[in-house]
Amino acid sequence: MNYHRPFGPDEYARRLVETKSRMDAAGFDLMICQDPANMAWLTGFDGWSFYVPQAVLVHAWEERPIWFGRAQDAKAALITTGLPASNIVGYSEPLIHHPVGHPFDELAELIVSRGWGAARIAVELDAHYYTARCHAHLTRGLSDAKLRDSGELVNWARLVKSDAELGLMREAGRICSATMDRALAKIAPGVPQYEVIAEVYHAQVMGVEGKFGDYTSLCPSLCPLIQVGEGTSTPHLTWTDEPLPDNTLIMMEIAGARHHYHAPLTRTIHLGKPPGKIVELTKVIVEGVDAALEKARPGVSCEEVEAVWQQVLNRNGIKKESRVGYSIGLNYPPDWGERTASLRPGDKTELQAGMCFHFQSGVWLEAYGAAVSEPFVVTQSGGERLCDVRRELIVID
Amino acid sequence: MNYHRPFGPDEYARRLVETKSRMDAAGFDLMICQDPANMAWLTGFDGWSFYVPQAVLVHAWEERPIWFGRAQDAKAALITTGLPASNIVGYSEPLIHHPVGHPFDELAELIVSRGWGAARIAVELDAHYYTARCHAHLTRGLSDAKLRDSGELVNWARLVKSDAELGLMREAGRICSATMDRALAKIAPGVPQYEVIAEVYHAQVMGVEGKFGDYTSLCPSLCPLIQVGEGTSTPHLTWTDEPLPDNTLIMMEIAGARHHYHAPLTRTIHLGKPPGKIVELTKVIVEGVDAALEKARPGVSCEEVEAVWQQVLNRNGIKKESRVGYSIGLNYPPDWGERTASLRPGDKTELQAGMCFHFQSGVWLEAYGAAVSEPFVVTQSGGERLCDVRRELIVID
Repeated sequence: MNYHRPFGPDEYARRLVETKSRMDAAGFDLMICQDPANMAWLTGFDGWSFYVPQAVLVHAWEERPIWFGRAQDAKAALITTGLPASNIVGYSEPLIHHPVGHPFDELAELIVSRGWGAARIAVELDAHYYTARCHAHLTRGLSDAKLRDSGELVNWARLVKSDAELGLMREAGRICSATMDRALAKIAPGVPQYEVIAEVYHAQVMGVEGKFGDYTSLCPSLCPLIQVGEGTSTPHLTWTDEPLPDNTLIMMEIAGARHHYHAPLTRTIHLGKPPGKIVELTKVIVEGVDAALEKARPGVSCEEVEAVWQQVLNRNGIKKESRVGYSIGLNYPPDWGERTASLRPGDKTELQAGMCFHFQSGVWLEAYGAAVSEPFVVTQSGGERLCDVRRELIVID
Repeated sequence: MNYHRPFGPDEYARRLVETKSRMDAAGFDLMICQDPANMAWLTGFDGWSFYVPQAVLVHAWEERPIWFGRAQDAKAALITTGLPASNIVGYSEPLIHHPVGHPFDELAELIVSRGWGAARIAVELDAHYYTARCHAHLTRGLSDAKLRDSGELVNWARLVKSDAELGLMREAGRICSATMDRALAKIAPGVPQYEVIAEVYHAQVMGVEGKFGDYTSLCPSLCPLIQVGEGTSTPHLTWTDEPLPDNTLIMMEIAGARHHYHAPLTRTIHLGKPPGKIVELTKVIVEGVDAALEKARPGVSCEEVEAVWQQVLNRNGIKKESRVGYSIGLNYPPDWGERTASLRPGDKTELQAGMCFHFQSGVWLEAYGAAVSEPFVVTQSGGERLCDVRRELIVID
């Protein structure tokens, strides 16, 4: 199989230097990554195997990372990482779903056998797949080591994207735009929700200009905003077979992914003639996003970007929302955020060129809401949009 | 929104009784479930919010479970569970991705405030999203409690399906069959892999007979089996834009899902005239599956089913593989197995009518392999197939 690696060796070398420098500053000899995005970012490893324990190890004195995982996934590691076979370590199959033993018993043995049993070791205590049981087995097997939380060390190292990564982010943006356009072409009163979603999945994978898309880290969300009863919205519900009504407000959130780099986008759609107040709210949101993206330049802090958005809302008498964006890039299910910088009050992270964010500008009022989000790259001239889809309340009659 | 609950209140009442009985036997007062499938099975809760901490609590003396999660997901909990608002507890938004605080600080406070601070508490140490950090915060906040691993208590309670659940499993099987048929219609030499996958996603969501499908817990896998170099296969790689070659062996693994109940299926396809030895191997596999399914009746153990399969292989001079199946049912990403009974040597779980398994009959020889899997329900007359797709090496010229 001719596997297409999206990056050359220089890119991985740069990432390793960056990671080791952060390890040194934080006082770590060894980094154990279980976050699939961190594993991929460090080595190129790509496969749907994160539902079993696996990890990438970076040791300060080792030239290359070590991949540790299920024996049957070792071949995928060889193909996707290009690491030498000596740096690919498979664990015994019977340890899968074993009531007493655990793959990380063998990981601990590996670490001890390399002479790192008393090392200062970073683990990712809050990575989705680093379960309490993984940690318990590792702790027990490494009783002489000093295990501490990495504090999302590698996630933070991923924050500023290289030019090669930005190329993929822009391709993801084009896939996302094309997908949203296809969804908008399908949405109409009477169409069952799942028919729209089927189009979305098809478009996400077909991609654009011969560049195919990957599965995205969240399922597409098409959410009719409820205007009956208590009248609040419900994010994160998935689709049903309800036909779209004649007169309703819909929020659609999707992403495009290219080699697992994600560009997410939200648009608000009104079926039938929209009430004036929703048109007005959407205009305010678009104005707020424009102002924030204009502000998003190197040297400005995350909270300053949020403040600009907030000012536009306040000037229009709208109450604020706490977090209006988060960093994006390479990711795997179930989340496409990087879990690092947020555009919210108190986040003093200074923007640098090449950081990417999803400006998730949802505003929920008492009986209705709207969101017109934008994924963007920080540049010297402000936030560069990754997607190009109509920035307005989209009316479908 | 008219949310379609797939089950009535009696079904949830039955599940709660079953869970409490197992809690009693295991010596637990309180069960904390974070596994999304366990949360859904106990309450009906459904949403793509498992990337943030959340849980369902079952206390021995409480009539109904308690949902605990992010405040913005509380509405989805109300809609999907039908629990009274007093049993829906949202946590503070600033605790999301907080460097010091954690949502489970508030979960611990909730448990203490209910008078359960010294209870015998079951936690799911190996559930995908129960991270080491979740556990650390819960342990710290519940210093008087006795926390122990549940041993997949609720997963085991899910093993035997009710008639209503079996109805959904059969619908999932029909969706899976239709999806595989559409993939087979698309597969041909020269077609880029991703075009096949786009069809698969579309078919998975469109469903059959007006019954739409859900996202599945694993992405579809289309894997050209490598016959060059060391000649081994690589499960879990995802698709590329490589066109399918003129003469090659392909393994395709997909699922259909209905209200998150999964029926997975694997088929092996040869493009061009297949070598005789692969045709022969596939025949042996199909014979082995037939024999095993014939054996899979109430009272027989998991390892006995595996042994029957193994005998067919051995009689044909083929070396065995350790695990040949696992229980299936309701699930969420990233895995569709229930993490309980396995069809493998040493598993003495006794089959009961209504258990469901994926008989994953892959055989990997030195330079090639094949798999013709079947999801099935245990019945008095043997394993009832959930899918109906040609059981043979599928040749596409």
